[in-house]
Amino acid sequence: MIDKTTIAATNEAAEARLRADYDALAEQLDRRGIDITAVKDKVAGYGIAVPSWGVGTGGTRFARFPGQGEPASIFDKLDDCGVIHQLTGATPRVSLHIPWDDADPADLNAKAEELGLGFDAMNSNTFSDAQGQAHSYKFGSLSHTRKEVRDQAVEHNLYCMELGKKIGSTALTVWIGDGSNFPGQVNMTRQFERYLDSTKAIYAKLPEDWRLFTEHKIFEPAFYSTVVQDWGTNYLIAKELGERAFCLVDLGHHAPSVNIEMIVARLIQFGKLGGFHFNDSKYGDDDLDTGSVDPYRLFLVFNELVNAADTPGFDPAHMLDQSHNVTDPIESLMNSAMEVQRAYAQALIVDRPALSGYQDENDALMASETLKRAFRTDVTPILQMARFEKGCAIDPLATYREAGYRAKVAEARPASTSGGGGIV
Amino acid sequence: MIDKTTIAATNEAAEARLRADYDALAEQLDRRGIDITAVKDKVAGYGIAVPSWGVGTGGTRFARFPGQGEPASIFDKLDDCGVIHQLTGATPRVSLHIPWDDADPADLNAKAEELGLGFDAMNSNTFSDAQGQAHSYKFGSLSHTRKEVRDQAVEHNLYCMELGKKIGSTALTVWIGDGSNFPGQVNMTRQFERYLDSTKAIYAKLPEDWRLFTEHKIFEPAFYSTVVQDWGTNYLIAKELGERAFCLVDLGHHAPSVNIEMIVARLIQFGKLGGFHFNDSKYGDDDLDTGSVDPYRLFLVFNELVNAADTPGFDPAHMLDQSHNVTDPIESLMNSAMEVQRAYAQALIVDRPALSGYQDENDALMASETLKRAFRTDVTPILQMARFEKGCAIDPLATYREAGYRAKVAEARPASTSGGGGIV
Amino acid sequence: MIDKTTIAATNEAAEARLRADYDALAEQLDRRGIDITAVKDKVAGYGIAVPSWGVGTGGTRFARFPGQGEPASIFDKLDDCGVIHQLTGATPRVSLHIPWDDADPADLNAKAEELGLGFDAMNSNTFSDAQGQAHSYKFGSLSHTRKEVRDQAVEHNLYCMELGKKIGSTALTVWIGDGSNFPGQVNMTRQFERYLDSTKAIYAKLPEDWRLFTEHKIFEPAFYSTVVQDWGTNYLIAKELGERAFCLVDLGHHAPSVNIEMIVARLIQFGKLGGFHFNDSKYGDDDLDTGSVDPYRLFLVFNELVNAADTPGFDPAHMLDQSHNVTDPIESLMNSAMEVQRAYAQALIVDRPALSGYQDENDALMASETLKRAFRTDVTPILQMARFEKGCAIDPLATYREAGYRAKVAEARPASTSGGGGIV
Amino acid sequence: MIDKTTIAATNEAAEARLRADYDALAEQLDRRGIDITAVKDKVAGYGIAVPSWGVGTGGTRFARFPGQGEPASIFDKLDDCGVIHQLTGATPRVSLHIPWDDADPADLNAKAEELGLGFDAMNSNTFSDAQGQAHSYKFGSLSHTRKEVRDQAVEHNLYCMELGKKIGSTALTVWIGDGSNFPGQVNMTRQFERYLDSTKAIYAKLPEDWRLFTEHKIFEPAFYSTVVQDWGTNYLIAKELGERAFCLVDLGHHAPSVNIEMIVARLIQFGKLGGFHFNDSKYGDDDLDTGSVDPYRLFLVFNELVNAADTPGFDPAHMLDQSHNVTDPIESLMNSAMEVQRAYAQALIVDRPALSGYQDENDALMASETLKRAFRTDVTPILQMARFEKGCAIDPLATYREAGYRAKVAEARPASTSGGGGIV
Repeated sequence: MIDKTTIAATNEAAEARLRADYDALAEQLDRRGIDITAVKDKVAGYGIAVPSWGVGTGGTRFARFPGQGEPASIFDKLDDCGVIHQLTGATPRVSLHIPWDDADPADLNAKAEELGLGFDAMNSNTFSDAQGQAHSYKFGSLSHTRKEVRDQAVEHNLYCMELGKKIGSTALTVWIGDGSNFPGQVNMTRQFERYLDSTKAIYAKLPEDWRLFTEHKIFEPAFYSTVVQDWGTNYLIAKELGERAFCLVDLGHHAPSVNIEMIVARLIQFGKLGGFHFNDSKYGDDDLDTGSVDPYRLFLVFNELVNAADTPGFDPAHMLDQSHNVTDPIESLMNSAMEVQRAYAQALIVDRPALSGYQDENDALMASETLKRAFRTDVTPILQMARFEKGCAIDPLATYREAGYRAKVAEARPASTSGGGGIV
Repeated sequence: MIDKTTIAATNEAAEARLRADYDALAEQLDRRGIDITAVKDKVAGYGIAVPSWGVGTGGTRFARFPGQGEPASIFDKLDDCGVIHQLTGATPRVSLHIPWDDADPADLNAKAEELGLGFDAMNSNTFSDAQGQAHSYKFGSLSHTRKEVRDQAVEHNLYCMELGKKIGSTALTVWIGDGSNFPGQVNMTRQFERYLDSTKAIYAKLPEDWRLFTEHKIFEPAFYSTVVQDWGTNYLIAKELGERAFCLVDLGHHAPSVNIEMIVARLIQFGKLGGFHFNDSKYGDDDLDTGSVDPYRLFLVFNELVNAADTPGFDPAHMLDQSHNVTDPIESLMNSAMEVQRAYAQALIVDRPALSGYQDENDALMASETLKRAFRTDVTPILQMARFEKGCAIDPLATYREAGYRAKVAEARPASTSGGGGIV
Repeated sequence: MIDKTTIAATNEAAEARLRADYDALAEQLDRRGIDITAVKDKVAGYGIAVPSWGVGTGGTRFARFPGQGEPASIFDKLDDCGVIHQLTGATPRVSLHIPWDDADPADLNAKAEELGLGFDAMNSNTFSDAQGQAHSYKFGSLSHTRKEVRDQAVEHNLYCMELGKKIGSTALTVWIGDGSNFPGQVNMTRQFERYLDSTKAIYAKLPEDWRLFTEHKIFEPAFYSTVVQDWGTNYLIAKELGERAFCLVDLGHHAPSVNIEMIVARLIQFGKLGGFHFNDSKYGDDDLDTGSVDPYRLFLVFNELVNAADTPGFDPAHMLDQSHNVTDPIESLMNSAMEVQRAYAQALIVDRPALSGYQDENDALMASETLKRAFRTDVTPILQMARFEKGCAIDPLATYREAGYRAKVAEARPASTSGGGGIV
Repeated sequence: MIDKTTIAATNEAAEARLRADYDALAEQLDRRGIDITAVKDKVAGYGIAVPSWGVGTGGTRFARFPGQGEPASIFDKLDDCGVIHQLTGATPRVSLHIPWDDADPADLNAKAEELGLGFDAMNSNTFSDAQGQAHSYKFGSLSHTRKEVRDQAVEHNLYCMELGKKIGSTALTVWIGDGSNFPGQVNMTRQFERYLDSTKAIYAKLPEDWRLFTEHKIFEPAFYSTVVQDWGTNYLIAKELGERAFCLVDLGHHAPSVNIEMIVARLIQFGKLGGFHFNDSKYGDDDLDTGSVDPYRLFLVFNELVNAADTPGFDPAHMLDQSHNVTDPIESLMNSAMEVQRAYAQALIVDRPALSGYQDENDALMASETLKRAFRTDVTPILQMARFEKGCAIDPLATYREAGYRAKVAEARPASTSGGGGIV
């Protein structure tokens, strides 16, 4: 964890400037009929989950270039996640990936308690082979042609739920790499039937208070077709499985130019939006930092969420899911959590009655401008004040760098080796 | 119609060559365990609908460059459609667009009978304003914010069904241009609710023996969002409406790189594939001639259809839907009908037991090769023999040109004027 | 023109609020080491051209839904352009399209002087046929297979330059619809040779103080290939022609996911960036309002421009080029001109020394944050103050609506008829 | 190597069928005015290079699932390449990747001679870090901000040329992973300047009889921008470097929907087409087997190549470059080499005078049909006869499986371990 005096010192240096900016913004928002305190309180209460794998340095199929002080175990990863939450106050939960993060649940709980963290959805990785695994997932897992492979994948999911129950998780996220690399390689119908059979077997064991999230993705690691390729198939799955099955939307898992907030709106309308994997992208599933490429797209998603906030039972899960290849993962995750908060705050200050009126009158320009006006508002002071009042860092990046955390763990942790990627 | 002696003469010149090629192919297929006669009979029995608008010269928003002898009325259009069917034997039905083709049903029936044609699905155009129309569709039709506009659009659909009943149609196809051009312009959820209300009102009046086809499209004329943007939303519609509502798949209406045959497979599996609008494209909804850009993609769609052929009640509608900007529309439609037959014939000769075996064994390469082998087979002699035996042209393009049909109608019909496109 | 008292009245109501916001922003920028006055002065001096066709209501190949009071002639169009500039102070020049806007140059000059406008680049439309034209452009213009068609297109370009010289224009913009709709339709090499021959003939007559802009576009109206498909081909053209030939970048004319600011950077580096056609898009060449879909992308383009501002001889032309299908075109153009100013202002306040330092140190996160920080800044008060000080409207949209201009011209101008689009 | 008696035996079983099919095709082509022998001879003389890495099992950033009997060294890889050439007669050269394949040149030459192979272009991998490397390529190689890193990368390229000279290679292929993952991370102009400086240093040492190929790629491993993103930038490089610098076109390295054969045509026209990396793809750089997804696209590329075949000095390099994740790499490479031959043979039988005539007359339909007719022709017998007459296998896949090569090497070679991909 970061030394509290470092936080206090960096905050002290920034406080006066923050108060000036916050007051100016408060006055401006007041003129627009918006109570800044209400917005700040909602932002302060917002939390997003961090994926355990995200605190390591990612890579591509060509190479992985390790960073300094990479976490060597799930407990190291939790330490890093603890720092992120300590400074931002925005990431109270960690989402584990099994088998990568498999450990004694008592140890996991103890560590999480120490860090003030909880556990979010469990992720059952069957897109790669673990050492000693009886059957390979080379040709699929839950939808494999052979029953013994499917059974093994189902068992692994049940195991994830068992572990999750012991650490306070209440959701299972299923993303698989099954699909095909050639036209004709699979019978798409039979493959999907097998997938449904497997997920039904998992769903049958889903604890009563849990939700099952299935995640679609248009391609990769399967390059010709994936068994859950888009939200249409994802919706069919959630319907087939039952009331506690929902669709997870990863912002990078769509065909080029697809309107993502519309998918969000449809899934909300039909009661099947389970949650998000936030990240950003330019070309495909680039797994770039959330909000770094197209911040307006992120805002438009939050606009749909705020719009639907009063829907009874509406409670989508929010998780980051991004790969950090060239940055310090802790910095990227802090920054991304703040970007999500920013989009949320901007969506909160949309003048919804005005928007609704313009929509009814087909005043396209003013409807567009109503969204743009909220998006243009620099809500940074709101985010900073929310953090400051919680004892977190006004400027988490500056405080983190000031604290020298990375250098310290680099001394304590073994150096990670360069990876060759999958291509050779 | 084309003079029968022209057909006979051009066929006579080609017959010997056809018989030689047919026999060689028969022998080759026989070695592969395939009975060429069975394939030929299925091809001979296959028919695809032609859209009435397709026999006119299309254009873009920038310009329309008219061709010679363009049809001036639905009766001219039917004449042209008659020629297409006379020479190819592959296009027994015409799909009307209302109000463009509105006419006395008795006259339509008389003309169709004269030409040996029938009528396919009715298309209710509410994507443009007709002269004298009470309310404009500028801001939408079935999903418009104002009830009177929606009602008008619903009424128009009911009218289309009334007319259709009198001319033997048994299906209504609904494609609308509703959507938005700006983020925020519409509330996507309320817009879709209005759409569902309107289509339910139409469905309530659907004749017992009719099917309702809804068609999705990712963009254009709405450039930010469309109310029926993809097969996921299309499926939701068909489910909401009822058992006689189905999804129509237009090959050009998808996001870039989307796997279309997979959508076909999913809709078949869930009982909601209504039919096709065939065309081809490179960039978007280019409406190019079917099979002209990516013939393997067309084959893969037919591979799914042949694979599902024995599904009880499986009977998707086949229609061409393409715009002819630089060719003689009759030539393009003849050629496209033959390309669809070609894909069908190729799909029929896939060695399905072998394919199934390779799929079960995850022998991706041989599964792929099994499809490729069928696709590589030049089935032209099968198509030609099927035509020849029905009294149609062995080579419809050559016969059509020989007959000089275009020059004749160019004399009889008024010249069409150049269009300015929509952009100005 | 808008009554000055309306401007004064609406400004008066907004002035106090503006001064408060401007002062708060000035203080904030001052803390960041930025002099708001310098930024404001640059914004005040910035101008972007408006395309004459943009003040009419656009459409798609499916339909055109006219608006009220559409301009019936180039003089009406100039009136509308005059209002845009009167209220925003940002659009001092109009870009004409010939033959649409052909008129007596003396009349054009007189009208422009009356309105305080000048003329920007001339556009030579050979993508559609004008009435009475000897040869059709159905199969191309500057690259047509037949010499007489190419000659006619060249002549038209020379005519545009002649006219342009008389009205003070100093640039010719050439965008053509030439290409192909089928694989094989054209020999791509010979087609490009013909294109180069034609443009060389035009370039040979280019006045000494003029620039020639060629514009690329990936598709439409040609749907399989276009003769100037991308910036690579565009660059080859500019190199072949000579020192006064440059590439024009339209933001909507690229393949999906292409990095546009990188193209801008490359063309600047190699001395061939001629200018821009600004608009926004989600799917293709959607011609939506600039900055309405992805404002960060627009900012990133301006970031390159400001970065290169000190390059000797660097003087790209700025023009809007967008189609207004569902809004009042005057409102859209005013708003878009302001969006461009906004992006410019945001790019001006990027901390370039800091950015450069982060880039040198490979501190990707802080480099990204440096851009984001500038983008997040709400520069609206700067834009408003720049307008206010020039006697323009603080809030042009509000003033325009208050003035009731659209209703007035709707009375004076003949109603425009609904268009059918190009598709039928 | 495969036992010759196995080849002879499997050929014997297939010979009669081959002769029948070949004769039938000869007769059909003769009717079309085509001499089958001339086509067969050209196909027989055609060769394509195989990349050494391609005989290993590839993977994604998520996982690599090893196959049986994977090559453990460059000498094992050469053995596998020898089998491919032995059976297909189509892959006489191997393209090495350094440092992966670094070895004593004498040993390489001896092994190659033993297998009847030669060496194609050298590939200088600077997209990943090799063990013991002084400076990391995490933030780039030839375009890195720091001179010592660029120098190291330049040195590596010089080393590749030194090695290549000793083994008979005459070309260097440079593909780098340099780019950025965030807007703002790099100054695109300065990055490209550094890249040009580095490649100029390499080019300065290029042996007189060598060619330098630079390869563009739109994204990955850099996800926001790459320094050589498209053919436009690639062309600039080749121009800057000099006469022996050429552009390499990888079929999977383009933005969605880009017309690749047009890029090929442009590069030919401007004298800068260096060669190809063949593969196929559906979504991005999928590295799927050549011709497996869109065989018509491959044919259209070869149509341009055959069209330009008589251009003086025209001699592009042909290489496969694909990743085999779910197939036996030897099978995929054999099959892909044959697919390329197929496209070549189909392009050879295009009726070019007829095509040219239709193009001149703007008869788009018949021009398209002329290409389609050649593409539809099943040229398999030509390919088989060419192999048979050279002592290769009529059906390489069947012979390879019959010979049991994979099982044999699986016994002799150590098992490869499952890889985790780059993502964690």
